[in-house]
Amino acid sequence: MKVPVEIEPVRVPGFRFAGVRAGIKASKKRDVAVIHSEVPAVAAAAFTTNRVKAAPVRLGIERIGSGRLQTIVVNSGNANAYTGRDGMKVARHMCAVAAGELGIAANLVIPSSTGRIGVQLPPDRVERGVRAACRELSADGFHDALEGIMTTDAFPKFGVETIVLDGRPIVVAGMAKGAGMIAPRLRRQKAGKHATMLAYFMTDAAIAGAALRRALDVALADSFNTIIVDGDTSTNDTVVLLANGVAGNRPVTVRSAEFADMCGAIGRLMTQLGRAIVKDGEGATKVVDVRVRGARNVRDAELAAEAIARSPLCKTAFFGSDPNMGRVICAIGYSGAKFNPDKIDVFIDDLQIVRRGEELTGTIEKQAHGKMSADELTLTIDLRAGSAVAHRVTSDLSLEYVQFNSAYTT
Amino acid sequence: MKVPVEIEPVRVPGFRFAGVRAGIKASKKRDVAVIHSEVPAVAAAAFTTNRVKAAPVRLGIERIGSGRLQTIVVNSGNANAYTGRDGMKVARHMCAVAAGELGIAANLVIPSSTGRIGVQLPPDRVERGVRAACRELSADGFHDALEGIMTTDAFPKFGVETIVLDGRPIVVAGMAKGAGMIAPRLRRQKAGKHATMLAYFMTDAAIAGAALRRALDVALADSFNTIIVDGDTSTNDTVVLLANGVAGNRPVTVRSAEFADMCGAIGRLMTQLGRAIVKDGEGATKVVDVRVRGARNVRDAELAAEAIARSPLCKTAFFGSDPNMGRVICAIGYSGAKFNPDKIDVFIDDLQIVRRGEELTGTIEKQAHGKMSADELTLTIDLRAGSAVAHRVTSDLSLEYVQFNSAYTT
Repeated sequence: MKVPVEIEPVRVPGFRFAGVRAGIKASKKRDVAVIHSEVPAVAAAAFTTNRVKAAPVRLGIERIGSGRLQTIVVNSGNANAYTGRDGMKVARHMCAVAAGELGIAANLVIPSSTGRIGVQLPPDRVERGVRAACRELSADGFHDALEGIMTTDAFPKFGVETIVLDGRPIVVAGMAKGAGMIAPRLRRQKAGKHATMLAYFMTDAAIAGAALRRALDVALADSFNTIIVDGDTSTNDTVVLLANGVAGNRPVTVRSAEFADMCGAIGRLMTQLGRAIVKDGEGATKVVDVRVRGARNVRDAELAAEAIARSPLCKTAFFGSDPNMGRVICAIGYSGAKFNPDKIDVFIDDLQIVRRGEELTGTIEKQAHGKMSADELTLTIDLRAGSAVAHRVTSDLSLEYVQFNSAYTT
Repeated sequence: MKVPVEIEPVRVPGFRFAGVRAGIKASKKRDVAVIHSEVPAVAAAAFTTNRVKAAPVRLGIERIGSGRLQTIVVNSGNANAYTGRDGMKVARHMCAVAAGELGIAANLVIPSSTGRIGVQLPPDRVERGVRAACRELSADGFHDALEGIMTTDAFPKFGVETIVLDGRPIVVAGMAKGAGMIAPRLRRQKAGKHATMLAYFMTDAAIAGAALRRALDVALADSFNTIIVDGDTSTNDTVVLLANGVAGNRPVTVRSAEFADMCGAIGRLMTQLGRAIVKDGEGATKVVDVRVRGARNVRDAELAAEAIARSPLCKTAFFGSDPNMGRVICAIGYSGAKFNPDKIDVFIDDLQIVRRGEELTGTIEKQAHGKMSADELTLTIDLRAGSAVAHRVTSDLSLEYVQFNSAYTT
């Protein structure tokens, strides 16, 4: 589902950005990006839980330990994953080059890579790219940087929130990329469990490290960790938050009244960008919100929602706008969740299609088909077994998905 | 992958078969089948582990408890799943009708259904069909019965083994259906975890109940429970074994020297039919054997094999004959299996493509593409972390799969 987006300038006080063409992508598009804070920033980050972690992820996990970062260096077109020791050298090198150019310590620089897995990242090209990007850094470079992190994305994904903290206007901005290998299961400082998605958030707010980390945990659970395109969890998923404090507000802590405002802004941005990734999912024609309620516990609710969001039979039915509840019920059935099939209610948007385990027929079916034909729809399943809920955002499985992924070799 | 198969007559002493047109399928093809033993047979069965169990599965679980059955009654075109109390009534009724026609007790009759989920099975049509089938039963009716159990299958799946037990020739024959909703996880007397597949095995051997059940358990683990087409585990999966003993051999027990021969015959047939289901998988153009070895334990080996066999990115790469090892490595990485990524070896058939965690390039890549282009191929992953192995048989994910399943509404 390819949606054009109006480009508006995004500025975050104290941050500069750049995106350049280093010849890593065959397409010759921008493929190296640098995001730089003028002063060291409080930082929090989360990474894929895939056991095979790309070199930049391994280095990132090491460097986020200090809770302070100043610069993010990204290349697209090559994931630098499954590249052994040489890959690790290149990841360190791209950071060292940026640190040298910017006159900061290398351990304040965190790398990211996205693209093909298992191919060595050409060190000279990435070096030239990083050098050029560091020299081009600008307060107005947000969109160039964003273009530099994109791969199979059809449109740029970003958002900006302005809030007031301690009487001062604060900007929180985020950019993300991702369309395939999407099923992030990110964990802070450990590795996560869905697709290559990269997302970076910058704010000029002053915030304590513990508060920033807590905000990240809360926001992740309801945003990136709920999205599924293909269900393949990448080796490279990375989310980084930088708060440089140049707004000069009294630092937000977990106990501040303003902590909720900060969490709100970060949460809204992450939810928005996560949803944009599903909308831009490879071959996607629809975004489907799968909401399970009435589960015995959260794990059961998640198992049920996740089974539907991953099922090829449900996802092809979504593509065909077919209100095939048999496939939905079947997926819940094998999900591992406990429930009584004779009690379930199912709704498509506000239209009830299954009542107490019985599929409603007649005109309902036609109405259901109409609802299923929309670009965005919500499938709600009430298991009537308890009060736990879960939410997943998924795309349909289309002909274009198969076409695209069976042809993809770079 | 649609393969025409030569039809040869199949006879099993003491068994009669029939398949008739009862108007349940819109296609007007045969849709009711009866398999009948002239005398009560020792029986073992396994059913889906899906929590949502079709009415015939629930009734079957109840009836297999006695270990004796005489007749299997099947309809295709409607799964009689998620059909509540009315569905249960129809399942009982189809057995009662057969029992009445054949003059046997209803609890010696086991039902199966396959087709659309969530739609009531028309009781009058199925009754007429069962009556007609019981009257047409014939020693030569095997292929008619087989046609009667098929749904989206493109070709009939069956096999025959002849062995000698106690100096007597023994026939073991099997028939199966299945092409979509395939990821059986069958368990004896409990419910299993993959697709609608139905499979029935008939032998004239005399065998003790415990030995037949044991043979089923052993054979399942290496056959139907290893296959995956879409990864959706059906509400209706059923495997039934009937041994009527008319061959007059000394009954085989678990301790007989001949137990191994019996297990061998059943195992070979189940493996052959499971493989045929994958070959006939909806939209499938390839059969891929995923073999994981060198795992720390069997669970890890299974997790790794299963992740590859289910991954949409791996399956579209198979479709495109793309030796994209990045996707394979990524899938193992998120599978939950424990291993060291720097130690893995990967082979496509006999061609090594990853050595000690490094992808081999150059001419190997071209050779790999050639191997991937075959109709059948084996992907072997050596985790080098232990000595456990696992095997899954999977199909590719093609354009035709999406076309077929986004259009399917009956």
